[in-house]
Amino acid sequence: MYGTEVRKTFRQVPFAQVAIEDSFWTPRLVAHKNVTLQTCLFELALKGTIANFSRAGKIIEGTFFEGYFFDDSDLYKVIEGAAYSLMTSPDPLLETRIDRIIDLIVAAQEDDGYLMTYFTLEAPDQKWTEMGKHEMYCGGHLMEAAVAYKQATGKRKLLDVAIKLADHYDATFGPGKRYWVEGHEEIELALVKLYRETGEKRYRDLAKWLLEERGSGHGADESWYNPDQEFCQGNIPIREMEKAVGHAVRAMYLYAAMTDVTSCGHDPEGYADVLDRVWDNTVNKRMYVTGGVGSSRDNEGFTEDYDLPNDTAYCETCASIGLVLWSHRMNLLHGDASYADVMERAMFNSALAGVSLDGFRFFYVNPLASKGGHARSTWHGCACCPSNIARFIPSIGNYTYATGERSAVVNIYQQGSAKLKLGNGQSVRIVQRTEYPWEGRSKLTIYPAGDAADGSAFALLLRKPDWCGQATLLVNGYPVENITMEKGYMVVDRVWRDGDTVTVDLAMPVERVYAHPKVKANEGKVAIRRGPIVYCVEGVDFRQPLDELVLDRDTVLAGEKRDDLLGGVVVVSGGAADAGEGGFRAVPYYAWGNRELGGSMAVWINEVRPDRGIEAG
Amino acid sequence: MYGTEVRKTFRQVPFAQVAIEDSFWTPRLVAHKNVTLQTCLFELALKGTIANFSRAGKIIEGTFFEGYFFDDSDLYKVIEGAAYSLMTSPDPLLETRIDRIIDLIVAAQEDDGYLMTYFTLEAPDQKWTEMGKHEMYCGGHLMEAAVAYKQATGKRKLLDVAIKLADHYDATFGPGKRYWVEGHEEIELALVKLYRETGEKRYRDLAKWLLEERGSGHGADESWYNPDQEFCQGNIPIREMEKAVGHAVRAMYLYAAMTDVTSCGHDPEGYADVLDRVWDNTVNKRMYVTGGVGSSRDNEGFTEDYDLPNDTAYCETCASIGLVLWSHRMNLLHGDASYADVMERAMFNSALAGVSLDGFRFFYVNPLASKGGHARSTWHGCACCPSNIARFIPSIGNYTYATGERSAVVNIYQQGSAKLKLGNGQSVRIVQRTEYPWEGRSKLTIYPAGDAADGSAFALLLRKPDWCGQATLLVNGYPVENITMEKGYMVVDRVWRDGDTVTVDLAMPVERVYAHPKVKANEGKVAIRRGPIVYCVEGVDFRQPLDELVLDRDTVLAGEKRDDLLGGVVVVSGGAADAGEGGFRAVPYYAWGNRELGGSMAVWINEVRPDRGIEAG
Repeated sequence: MYGTEVRKTFRQVPFAQVAIEDSFWTPRLVAHKNVTLQTCLFELALKGTIANFSRAGKIIEGTFFEGYFFDDSDLYKVIEGAAYSLMTSPDPLLETRIDRIIDLIVAAQEDDGYLMTYFTLEAPDQKWTEMGKHEMYCGGHLMEAAVAYKQATGKRKLLDVAIKLADHYDATFGPGKRYWVEGHEEIELALVKLYRETGEKRYRDLAKWLLEERGSGHGADESWYNPDQEFCQGNIPIREMEKAVGHAVRAMYLYAAMTDVTSCGHDPEGYADVLDRVWDNTVNKRMYVTGGVGSSRDNEGFTEDYDLPNDTAYCETCASIGLVLWSHRMNLLHGDASYADVMERAMFNSALAGVSLDGFRFFYVNPLASKGGHARSTWHGCACCPSNIARFIPSIGNYTYATGERSAVVNIYQQGSAKLKLGNGQSVRIVQRTEYPWEGRSKLTIYPAGDAADGSAFALLLRKPDWCGQATLLVNGYPVENITMEKGYMVVDRVWRDGDTVTVDLAMPVERVYAHPKVKANEGKVAIRRGPIVYCVEGVDFRQPLDELVLDRDTVLAGEKRDDLLGGVVVVSGGAADAGEGGFRAVPYYAWGNRELGGSMAVWINEVRPDRGIEAG
Repeated sequence: MYGTEVRKTFRQVPFAQVAIEDSFWTPRLVAHKNVTLQTCLFELALKGTIANFSRAGKIIEGTFFEGYFFDDSDLYKVIEGAAYSLMTSPDPLLETRIDRIIDLIVAAQEDDGYLMTYFTLEAPDQKWTEMGKHEMYCGGHLMEAAVAYKQATGKRKLLDVAIKLADHYDATFGPGKRYWVEGHEEIELALVKLYRETGEKRYRDLAKWLLEERGSGHGADESWYNPDQEFCQGNIPIREMEKAVGHAVRAMYLYAAMTDVTSCGHDPEGYADVLDRVWDNTVNKRMYVTGGVGSSRDNEGFTEDYDLPNDTAYCETCASIGLVLWSHRMNLLHGDASYADVMERAMFNSALAGVSLDGFRFFYVNPLASKGGHARSTWHGCACCPSNIARFIPSIGNYTYATGERSAVVNIYQQGSAKLKLGNGQSVRIVQRTEYPWEGRSKLTIYPAGDAADGSAFALLLRKPDWCGQATLLVNGYPVENITMEKGYMVVDRVWRDGDTVTVDLAMPVERVYAHPKVKANEGKVAIRRGPIVYCVEGVDFRQPLDELVLDRDTVLAGEKRDDLLGGVVVVSGGAADAGEGGFRAVPYYAWGNRELGGSMAVWINEVRPDRGIEAG
């Protein structure tokens, strides 16, 4: 029986094992490689971010620092993204350029392992005096880049920098040594990643210690970003956390790290209960329909339950990417499809909206409504979001599959193929043909490893998304009558032979979605969803202002694939009603702002004509 | 009769009228766009060259300057190259990026029109005090970029900067105003270009005045680059010049400017005699077989007649490009194919060697022999050569055709098509099919303008290259028995009807070329040429050191097209003899160093075993 395995932690199927060959993600990967990476490298060079390393490494003269103190991290994230790109799309020129940059990083590392160009150049006597100065945040991104580049190229140079840096941290901080509460989480999940790459348990232990230090009171210092504050999730010990609080990116990275520490088995009692509470609070009370999190501009983060304004929604691109990282880890930890539902929501909507279709422009802030004037920029002074997009897009294949002890798990339907190795050592290749996310039908062909002449027995777990009311399954063309469900997955447990096929058909009607009644901003409003895609209306499609638009409850809405629009999307349209001469039209939220820079947009649409008050006369 | 027209000045056929669709140049154009331009923009951003403009324009803080004082010019050349690329290959992302950079240049221009970030940032009180500080050199490149960008995009913003700058020069310098001898020529040809774009005669007059000031003694100042010296072609008035002297890039730009001033008719007596003398000296006594000029590293330039060492040859890439610019102008001025012979030689050999096949690496110095260790770099501290390549490659179509009063002129055989407008207003489209430079056969199909129902009478001038001993012509398949020759062109003067064809067949055997006996370095040596392509041997093809290689006089050499090698080239090979186990193999010089970084190479090969002295014993 399959039963017990699914409760075990899933394993990740790295994207390098996943070939994406579809019309949805492939163009984004091409734009990432040809445009986004080039843009990031150019802009980081232009801004002086790379030159900071040259000066810190005494390759060029000067001791001044250009940019924000934490800008090192942007370069690391772009290197991480370049590494991911190299894994699936080798490019000697890109690799040569990254190698040259790595030489600068090597030069910039100090003899004792310390690495952060701001302090090396501008304030060497102020190292480790302000916990809000992102020293370990930058170090964490260096470690992630280093692991990625090692895995992509086999080259250790940057990994050796990361190890030397981690050893420096470990020698300086920890029980009996100096205390530290890092003002911006990131180091914790990065140390786990470095532990997984090197097997060095000190890194995992240091990650755990850093987590436990939060809320200890050790984080009090005089910096503005006082790690003791709720803004940094440092006001209480993490085991006492009940809600998602503070700066949203920090929060997501923290929760992801807690999930990592739990799932790498260091902490038997784990943070699992804490994570469950905070997860429940996040996704049910503090998350937008798009998967955006962090509703307030003031703290770039969380406020109160159900406080989800649309036009002032912050929903930083980095926070959506952080939610993908966290929900993916939760899915692997619990083997539960509901986490992948959230992961999918953020992937296809709020995170993907962060970059234009051509890969050239970026949103930092992703509101759910705009009266106009909010446009993607070719760059941002604080470049955390473009650089996060640079590493997110090429790693998208990470989220497609997972494996259990004797199960192959399909989390995201996506055309292409993948090689999976199950926990028990069985191998299987899966070929998927689908038009997902535009159509709900996917045909999977299963190829167990070569020597399994008698076939290979394992369970195929197919996520039944939360948005899907009706799903059907065919195995080798024959319907499966009573689908076994397990934690949100449809289970097909059988002996597989080469060429066996499974056809999943997820009903994908256009849906009207209503907000929780406590969300004041959405009273009388409706959102549109079709499959995983959340829709919006754009001013460019209407004559009247969008807040005067009314989508009657009885307007019939239908989806239509339009290959000529926005790179090929399903457009939702319906009766004319109040909806301008051409009738009502909604487009995928992730694609808004690509036809008109700074046009108006709304996800939540009036279903009832707004009260305009009593007019005089 | 055709006779008189060919003596008139040819007109340029701008490359925007020339579609290149071949297997030789097209891959270079693709590499230019995808790799070279991206590399240049990245490196100039990395180096701080672009940030200098941001600081000078007070867009970011700071008054320091990074790089060499003349680095502004590199950015201008890359903008010029981007503009050329945009003319034939529109790219909104590239254009957006260039527009952003142009905004920085606009901001950096001072109120009175002055523009050079080094002086604005570091030494505002030292403007116009040292003639060797490249102030007008940078201004000249700005003007070339501005004209190109206006022609490519229709946008005037950069052109307005150029006009304001030229007006500033014109208000400050000239008869009755301040004197000036620019230490590095460039402004003179740029002012002519700006005159041609705007019609403003003051710019042409200023160019002429600047030329006439050279050698006047006005250039004496205390700078190291004293414009009064021969190094800067400023030791004597230009009308007294007899030989190519000094820094080779400066010299080429000077001679090109003199040709411009002459051909735009400002100077009735002209510099024509001077140019003829200097041309003769350059190409017969001071030029390498590859079209390289400037034999000495000491002055990056000319030395004595016949002083053409191979391993220490400087042959700066910029100088070869400069020779193309000059020889093209001479061809247009005189309507004589011999200038196009030199143009072709430099284009296909020394200039093209300046960039790797993938567009990613650059030579500054182009020796004709290397024992190893000379490799193209991904960038150069002094980036004049990469940025010159960036503008040279996309403008290569400039050199293909020309027009006379009633003649269409084919200078370079090249597959593709072109629209030509003759001096008398006739239009003609020419479609060329050829495998040039690998095969000598080209088929041209002629399409006179639409309304010429009775056909269109004009002369087609087909260059018979200097390397070609035997050429045949077919018109509509019928041989032309007695080919009329005129200044190196084969003339077909007839009434043309749509679809008329001309087939040129240029005999293209492998040739052994011998140096002038006064060139000591090449005593007992031979070079190999096939058509316009000069060959070399590379160490990677041989077991013995190249200076021990002997190519016997009686070894039969043959060319063979190898599509799998170096992007598709004709390889020259011959009997084994002394030439290693695999026999003798030579590859095109322009493609050397692409299989092995820093390998050995030689253009001139021993035909006689070198005297090893008397061995003891």
